[in-house]
Amino acid sequence: MTNDALNPLEVAHMPVDHSDALVVGVDYGTLSGRAVVVRVADGAELGSAVFEYPHAVVTDALPGSATPLGSGWALQVPGDYVEVLRNAVPAALADAGVDPADVVGIATDFTACTMVPTLADGTPLSELPQFADRPHAYVKLWKHHAAQPQADRINQLAAERGEPWLARYGGLISSEWEFAKGLQVLEEDPETYAAMQRWVEAADWIVWQLTGSYVRNACTAGYKGIFQDGRYPSRDFLAALNPDFADFVATKLDQPIGQLGAPAGRLTEQAAGWTGLPAGIAVAVGNVDAHVTAAAGNALEPGQMVAIMGTSTCHVMNARELRTVPGMCGVVDGGIVAGLWGYEAGQSGVGDIFAHFVKTHVPADYAQRAAAEGLTIHEYLTRLAAAQEVGQHGLVALDWHSGNRSVLVNHELSGVLVGESLATRPEDIYRALIEATAFGTRTIVETFNAAGVPVTELLAVGGLVKNELLMQIYSDVTRLPLSRIPSGQGPALGAAIHAAVAAGCYPDVPAAAAAMGRVERAVYQPDPHAAARYDELFDEYRQLHDYFGRGGNGVMYRLRAIQRRAVDR
Amino acid sequence: MTNDALNPLEVAHMPVDHSDALVVGVDYGTLSGRAVVVRVADGAELGSAVFEYPHAVVTDALPGSATPLGSGWALQVPGDYVEVLRNAVPAALADAGVDPADVVGIATDFTACTMVPTLADGTPLSELPQFADRPHAYVKLWKHHAAQPQADRINQLAAERGEPWLARYGGLISSEWEFAKGLQVLEEDPETYAAMQRWVEAADWIVWQLTGSYVRNACTAGYKGIFQDGRYPSRDFLAALNPDFADFVATKLDQPIGQLGAPAGRLTEQAAGWTGLPAGIAVAVGNVDAHVTAAAGNALEPGQMVAIMGTSTCHVMNARELRTVPGMCGVVDGGIVAGLWGYEAGQSGVGDIFAHFVKTHVPADYAQRAAAEGLTIHEYLTRLAAAQEVGQHGLVALDWHSGNRSVLVNHELSGVLVGESLATRPEDIYRALIEATAFGTRTIVETFNAAGVPVTELLAVGGLVKNELLMQIYSDVTRLPLSRIPSGQGPALGAAIHAAVAAGCYPDVPAAAAAMGRVERAVYQPDPHAAARYDELFDEYRQLHDYFGRGGNGVMYRLRAIQRRAVDR
Repeated sequence: MTNDALNPLEVAHMPVDHSDALVVGVDYGTLSGRAVVVRVADGAELGSAVFEYPHAVVTDALPGSATPLGSGWALQVPGDYVEVLRNAVPAALADAGVDPADVVGIATDFTACTMVPTLADGTPLSELPQFADRPHAYVKLWKHHAAQPQADRINQLAAERGEPWLARYGGLISSEWEFAKGLQVLEEDPETYAAMQRWVEAADWIVWQLTGSYVRNACTAGYKGIFQDGRYPSRDFLAALNPDFADFVATKLDQPIGQLGAPAGRLTEQAAGWTGLPAGIAVAVGNVDAHVTAAAGNALEPGQMVAIMGTSTCHVMNARELRTVPGMCGVVDGGIVAGLWGYEAGQSGVGDIFAHFVKTHVPADYAQRAAAEGLTIHEYLTRLAAAQEVGQHGLVALDWHSGNRSVLVNHELSGVLVGESLATRPEDIYRALIEATAFGTRTIVETFNAAGVPVTELLAVGGLVKNELLMQIYSDVTRLPLSRIPSGQGPALGAAIHAAVAAGCYPDVPAAAAAMGRVERAVYQPDPHAAARYDELFDEYRQLHDYFGRGGNGVMYRLRAIQRRAVDR
Repeated sequence: MTNDALNPLEVAHMPVDHSDALVVGVDYGTLSGRAVVVRVADGAELGSAVFEYPHAVVTDALPGSATPLGSGWALQVPGDYVEVLRNAVPAALADAGVDPADVVGIATDFTACTMVPTLADGTPLSELPQFADRPHAYVKLWKHHAAQPQADRINQLAAERGEPWLARYGGLISSEWEFAKGLQVLEEDPETYAAMQRWVEAADWIVWQLTGSYVRNACTAGYKGIFQDGRYPSRDFLAALNPDFADFVATKLDQPIGQLGAPAGRLTEQAAGWTGLPAGIAVAVGNVDAHVTAAAGNALEPGQMVAIMGTSTCHVMNARELRTVPGMCGVVDGGIVAGLWGYEAGQSGVGDIFAHFVKTHVPADYAQRAAAEGLTIHEYLTRLAAAQEVGQHGLVALDWHSGNRSVLVNHELSGVLVGESLATRPEDIYRALIEATAFGTRTIVETFNAAGVPVTELLAVGGLVKNELLMQIYSDVTRLPLSRIPSGQGPALGAAIHAAVAAGCYPDVPAAAAAMGRVERAVYQPDPHAAARYDELFDEYRQLHDYFGRGGNGVMYRLRAIQRRAVDR
């Protein structure tokens, strides 16, 4: 079958016989892109392939240059994204051993907020010879953190003016997002800013490459672009930030919004050549890795909180109601699935805290014993920690080694460990750190509950899901059943589900997720005895959380300031 | 020369020609005894020898028994102390290559409070066959911590009754001291208590073995025996603790008090046989390791605070005034040197915190790099830490891994680390821990200053003195000149100085210390710039100190309670 004759709107509502139909999902991560070929009927993953970005993340200097970038910079090269289409998609098709003619749609998900400065036709500025040596002409990756001064001004001004959209972001706009990064371009490189005709989410730029037309997705427009209730921040507001920024929205940002799962267009001949897919098949509106994962786990019902647990944790959840949840990352109408309010929250440090601990705090004899037993140090520490009773280590930690996203939204915060004695062992601290991240999750869950957006189930996905001790601790600490979304291709499968909807194989994303998503329900149940003991430790966590995080003692800010001054000497 | 014809009182005031005279000092530590042969004229150390106690510290079960001791028990075997006299003293004489006939006096110093239960003639109960299998018949070493319930009752009752002596101990009697340990014997083994005719400080018991007579030293009587203003706690008080304890002082404790540096008697023929020393030479009144060290460093003037820095730190200082210093360990008239008020304070964890860190928190690659450079891990971490600017690590720690002695006097407290990020390295924490112990010392110094007992100089001695970074940090943090008492034989030299006084070679301990003691004055001077930066970090330390230690947040007590319940399950 082919959709050649259909325009996008028609595609979205036309049921097709999809017994043999296939879709392709492409997940763009921080270092690589992964393509997966999925059967529309049941979500079976038939083949996959990964392609690593040749330029990875550019943090020190532009390719071929020795001029150092500033602190906090993180760039990418947009051509690398096209290379994923040219390499990973054909390889995934080959791996699946399928006939590409059976593929009816393709969808992508991307890191966010990752921004591409382009001409009006989508050409990245960094591909123009006259801009090739300008850092601001390159893609600003989500973790580019050099726009904090701009973010600070945005937040201060928005608070002063009582901008209504501020509450939709828990009261703070991140330096990672579209406006702070855009303002940084203007103020640090006005020429590049002037040449920049569009400021495009990479999630949409890649779809633009596939379809030849630019559709802005509802997810990043809302979560990263401050698009709320059909409006961006006003021209007045922008002019007050910087007079030259007044027309930022009108000239560089504004674009028709596509709903998630809707078709953005059809695959061009050029993109068909890159991918080996049939020209004319449906291409879904762009999307974000965390948000498509909810579909992959068929976790789109209100109250189902999906936790994507890796180096950091991202939480996404739908609700029927619009509420202000303090410290959330954002709430967006249709931000996860059309027709519901999509909430996002996050913990800025989780797996990276454990990795840091294993790298810097575990002595040689532990490494030797782990190796002797054929275990990773994580596995060895987990086994030792699992043999303990709750509270036996005598410790409580704050999981702020990478700052705190939800619910305090403060990257000046730092880690704390209370209770160490001369008898404290590495496995004790390791367990206390796991518990601290679980307490962080409980803090988020309780904040949602208190705001009238109740959480009834926790669904975990990502690299940490394989740690059974951690999973049980999360269930005990939150007193919630913990479901598991089989990890691995989660986001790519989620993208593929959106491709199936865009291709008209299902009427909407929930229907497609029900058929194609995968979840292992309530694999972990809270143990009431352990939960009662964790309540005591959580009370300690909460007291320390509020003391250090809510004004009781500003020691963490002052230590950062002292540190910055010391380093500057 | 010989003192055979002199009685002790005459000896003390008779100057002798001591150009060739020698004295022996014996330092009884936790695991071994060390003898040193010293020239009276100038304190030159001519020879030394160490003898390790055959039974070391008995913590698990009595020798030859499988019956486990309780948690916190730490016993010793008194015969081991005599073995030091039989082995280390002759070996030190041989090492010095001197004629034993030139030795005019011997003195000892001991750990305290270390208690020997004996018959009226000094025979240890543990040496009687019928008591050989009773744990309470053995020596209770200073770090026997199983008498905490008794100490708690002593403190509660003393506070209720407003006992005047309580303030002399910063408001708290330790579980390590004579009364708590004695009450534990009574309440856990009344038969042994009934058989115990004397409850003797090991510092005095060893002198008893040398002289054949029992003289109680003013130092331990005051610091450990609650002997203040010529009185022990009253019979009423003891009866209120436990009716059977009413006569404890009268029947087991009371004994004539000898001043430090005075002769306790003369060396018996038996002891001369053990040691190879001439019978009849002067034997000094017993003393304590920390307190004799002040003499070894010629640091007996008011305001000179001696810090004996090893696994823990003990501070001793003289003053002309009697003041109440909150959280001091004790103030005793003549407790360090006759005629002055001797103050003692302490930090319960210092070197052992660094040792714990190196053992449990330092990764294999650090150990490898240290080994490759021929450094210990301590040396390697110190070198890395020394390359930092003050405050560069962004951390502040509380040094309470082993509880807090001065000024909070609370062993339920525990360690804290604030400010850890994903960029924190082992050397950062190592330095923060060193700084935390320096902040602990500053807290003590400031408390003394505020109480009207000013500290004008810090004199360091002990194993940590060789760490130049640590020494400089202590000087910067306290803004005090830091003198160094050459480490090694410090306490044994201090004992030898007391032997010289007991032998009549000097009119008093200060005169002997001036001739025989050794100190390197003001080796470290505070760097005003560093000191100013440390002031900022110390402000943070103080805030956390008061928050966790003075009622702001009782989390540490609750964590300990949770831990005890968890372990008991």
